[in-house]
Amino acid sequence: MKVVSILGSTGSIGCNTLKVIDHLGDFRVAALGAGRNMPRLAEQVAKYRPEMVSVEDEGRADELSAELNKLCTSLPKLVIGQAGLVEVATFPTAEVVVSATVGAVGFVPTLRAIEAGKRIALANKETLVMAGELMTRAAGRSGAEILPVDSEHNAIHQCLRGEKRSEVERLILTASGGPFRTWSSRQMTAATVEDALAHPNWSMGDKITIDSATLMNKGFEVIEAKWLFGFDADQISVIVHPQSVVHSMVEMVDGSVIAQLGVTDMKHPIQYALTYPERQKGCNSPLDLANLGGLSFEEPDPDRFPSLELAYEALRMGGTAAAALNASNEVAVEAFLTRKIRFAEIAETNRSVLGSHENTAADTLEHILAADAAARARAIMRLSRAAVAHEANAV
Amino acid sequence: MKVVSILGSTGSIGCNTLKVIDHLGDFRVAALGAGRNMPRLAEQVAKYRPEMVSVEDEGRADELSAELNKLCTSLPKLVIGQAGLVEVATFPTAEVVVSATVGAVGFVPTLRAIEAGKRIALANKETLVMAGELMTRAAGRSGAEILPVDSEHNAIHQCLRGEKRSEVERLILTASGGPFRTWSSRQMTAATVEDALAHPNWSMGDKITIDSATLMNKGFEVIEAKWLFGFDADQISVIVHPQSVVHSMVEMVDGSVIAQLGVTDMKHPIQYALTYPERQKGCNSPLDLANLGGLSFEEPDPDRFPSLELAYEALRMGGTAAAALNASNEVAVEAFLTRKIRFAEIAETNRSVLGSHENTAADTLEHILAADAAARARAIMRLSRAAVAHEANAV
Repeated sequence: MKVVSILGSTGSIGCNTLKVIDHLGDFRVAALGAGRNMPRLAEQVAKYRPEMVSVEDEGRADELSAELNKLCTSLPKLVIGQAGLVEVATFPTAEVVVSATVGAVGFVPTLRAIEAGKRIALANKETLVMAGELMTRAAGRSGAEILPVDSEHNAIHQCLRGEKRSEVERLILTASGGPFRTWSSRQMTAATVEDALAHPNWSMGDKITIDSATLMNKGFEVIEAKWLFGFDADQISVIVHPQSVVHSMVEMVDGSVIAQLGVTDMKHPIQYALTYPERQKGCNSPLDLANLGGLSFEEPDPDRFPSLELAYEALRMGGTAAAALNASNEVAVEAFLTRKIRFAEIAETNRSVLGSHENTAADTLEHILAADAAARARAIMRLSRAAVAHEANAV
Repeated sequence: MKVVSILGSTGSIGCNTLKVIDHLGDFRVAALGAGRNMPRLAEQVAKYRPEMVSVEDEGRADELSAELNKLCTSLPKLVIGQAGLVEVATFPTAEVVVSATVGAVGFVPTLRAIEAGKRIALANKETLVMAGELMTRAAGRSGAEILPVDSEHNAIHQCLRGEKRSEVERLILTASGGPFRTWSSRQMTAATVEDALAHPNWSMGDKITIDSATLMNKGFEVIEAKWLFGFDADQISVIVHPQSVVHSMVEMVDGSVIAQLGVTDMKHPIQYALTYPERQKGCNSPLDLANLGGLSFEEPDPDRFPSLELAYEALRMGGTAAAALNASNEVAVEAFLTRKIRFAEIAETNRSVLGSHENTAADTLEHILAADAAARARAIMRLSRAAVAHEANAV
């Protein structure tokens, strides 16, 4: 019986993690952390009976208590805010911590879980994007294993089983290309929030779906791959593969390409991360190769998807550049989702913030959080100026 | 410096092996065995200076000596017939034996090399088709490693690196579908030797190209896979993949599919078998995924390709059934290549011979060779009767 703690239990990865645990049977949920969806969290608490639950603030804690009083007789310990999420992440009996919050909020709790030597099933991209060096160094010290849950890195982890690092030519991350793969630049300029949320293959949270539409998500995955697998930017490439059947590949020095294929369902990589190094019977129907239709591959278009190149640029800059890019992107995507800016302005904001970033070493939490805060401030300032200009134009 | 012996050096696998050795640099060719192509063998001897060379008979030995007298001052030791091929296969200093003869002639020499504990780079399919149990048992005793050179098993070998046998759901062999993939049954009945030799993806010897057109080759690969990897027939499936980019796949119990992709060039699996467990820089240009066009998969059609099911039937029968099927097929393909029978008669002959096979345990060389001889005799007899009937009809 493995004991699990889940950060971000009410999001799409969190819910799928619980489905996988239902399927596997030999896991116990010790602690849950969630942000805002109290009705769903209450259901999870009633079903899995964790010992500890964290929520965003006092108001949410009251809301959850009210819900739980209807469902259970005994309540778990309730904790609040980032300190609460850290308590969930470091819950003493938990062996595996599923890090599945969205955005920078998961950063410190995940670092604390790594420092505590937990196995991390990592779905929170920001952790490695913001602070890959710090995190992997901490994992080296504590012996924490980081198992990637997003399908691409999970695929690469599988492809690298039994292979020597020195015999790898390059990692090849596949990208669906998102909803705008075949759109013209002009069409993309007029894209709505609904257009951008219409991801062709994966059902995910809003933030990551927008990042898939800009290919910023793929850019962040390049950065993550560097830290997860220890390869440089020039050994990590991206190929567009609209069907998302090949989840990623590794090219070896002898020209052989090892690929991992599967159905497009996050339950697979979650299960892999929970059971590794074992594989257990999956909860999806197997991949039906003969009914796939065709599989195709194409190079990503740097003109229509400038965010991908921004990630390589941040990697080349090193230091806190990736943290700044991530922070700027969070602000810009939020502004797009709340219809304050156009789609193309996400990348423009990111480029501007990265261009004016005052780089520092990413060797302390303080440096990284300072870079994050400064980039957020710059992004907000830029968007406010743009909004004033829009209004002036409208008048 | 690894020392190599090559059985079948003038065939397509043999020639490609020498190209790979040219590329790798740190291999020495100690012994060569070839059948009939004396001018090419003479060139190889002049270039690689092996210590021993085997040819089919005295006449060929005289022909080779005459050729060599023009090219070299010192001659290698010349040996003759199957006994000679066994000497090449067990040449004392050779660590790796490339078994690349076509047909049953490679069977005994390969067994002797296995018994001598050599690493076998195995391209001779008949070895495992005829005597998988005997060969793998011998390898178990001597510690000989058998590294498959045909692209499908080589791919599966690569996919299984780092995986546990108990966690494999099934092996998935890909088949190009051959030149008749899209032909109707009626068209296939009238297919000529030239039609059948026009393989869409691979340049190989005539015998194996015909076996690709009937899918008998794929059936033999199912049998080989059983012996190479230790899985039963119901854990080995075949999927048609016309582009031959995915060389084969393994489905794991958790639903994950690991695939090996590469350019369609036998030099890759040959190099893999020579350098394993290391991988060295390849001699092909890398796979250009974005320029592949689409990749597709379809189920094989049992009605148009009955030979595939015959292989499963032979596996279910066990004993010497596969040896009988292989022998019958050699006779039938030779008859087709010399225009004595129609394309469809290859499978008809095989079905008839397998149906009347008197099965025995495949636990001794004698049993296997007796089954081979009996099946050849039956196939020849059946083809003679058919020829008489044809002539009678023609009169």
